[in-house]
Amino acid sequence: MELLKQRILKDGEIQDGGILKVGSFLNHQIDIELMDEIGRAFYELYKDAGINKIMTIEASGIAIASMTARHFKAPVVFAKKAKSLNLGSQVYTSRVHSFTYDRDYDVTVDKRYLTKADRVLIVDDFMARGKAMTGLLDICRQAGSEVCGVGICIEKGFQGGGDALREQGVRVESLAIVAHIENGKIVFR
Amino acid sequence: MELLKQRILKDGEIQDGGILKVGSFLNHQIDIELMDEIGRAFYELYKDAGINKIMTIEASGIAIASMTARHFKAPVVFAKKAKSLNLGSQVYTSRVHSFTYDRDYDVTVDKRYLTKADRVLIVDDFMARGKAMTGLLDICRQAGSEVCGVGICIEKGFQGGGDALREQGVRVESLAIVAHIENGKIVFR
Repeated sequence: MELLKQRILKDGEIQDGGILKVGSFLNHQIDIELMDEIGRAFYELYKDAGINKIMTIEASGIAIASMTARHFKAPVVFAKKAKSLNLGSQVYTSRVHSFTYDRDYDVTVDKRYLTKADRVLIVDDFMARGKAMTGLLDICRQAGSEVCGVGICIEKGFQGGGDALREQGVRVESLAIVAHIENGKIVFR
Repeated sequence: MELLKQRILKDGEIQDGGILKVGSFLNHQIDIELMDEIGRAFYELYKDAGINKIMTIEASGIAIASMTARHFKAPVVFAKKAKSLNLGSQVYTSRVHSFTYDRDYDVTVDKRYLTKADRVLIVDDFMARGKAMTGLLDICRQAGSEVCGVGICIEKGFQGGGDALREQGVRVESLAIVAHIENGKIVFR
């Protein structure tokens, strides 16, 4: 998606260790008109897949899921990152390792909100090693939901998570794939 | 907002201790068409206030803020609930006590995304005692941003947070105010 790639080049910040920060427009402050175009792009990619639910994980996926769901006229369900006291006991759970925070956490979804009847598009802001996505796919498998595909705003191609899922036969569509970051410069695949 | 009140009566769940759960349509699974009507309602209430930023707090406020920001054509900024390793050191911080989880946590916003130039509408799904909202107001004060008002989907009137803010002169508009919950029945103010 050219609009997103140009925005990453214009406003993305590269920190030590090749960390790309897009908090000024994607996942802390959110340019809602860009987000609506991102939702439209996912709709164009998946509109014929019979999707009836948009899934993501808190927190930064929720804006993307909401602006995507608007185009599909489908509900959103977001996985929670720790068992909430208010979530109720009937939840699907999957253990995920966060390399960002170097800790494990559980992702949970109330069993009532993900069922065999659901044809799911999973969206998120970033995919690196794909650990969070693997947890969401595991939860969909537990629920018997059909995962029609994955939609990622920014895939870190050099960390391999997206390609590993593609090799497993998962349809993964990323709007921008960073091939590598060299001397502070972003090179897209 | 009649549409929201009717949905609360139809799909809200009342648990022991008078806890109202709306996870089937507002803050775990999200009815995005209802959410868009909620955003439209906040726009109608605040469209003449010169608002140029929609603020909320992760996680369940993000969908509401996004669908509200769409109507205002304004960006969203969401406060984070713990200092993220990726957030950067230049953040506004306020300490909040969560009665739900019975613990304190810090809400943080990157200083670059909230400034003296911002005229802010703060939105959230629930207001009970208003502790989280007080933290967001404190962060806006630190930033020198003008808070034009607060928009709440469901205010628990019997817990007093909304009225306390109104007494302080904050404009608080709630789409549904629960006066009390009696024998498992919701009574709106």
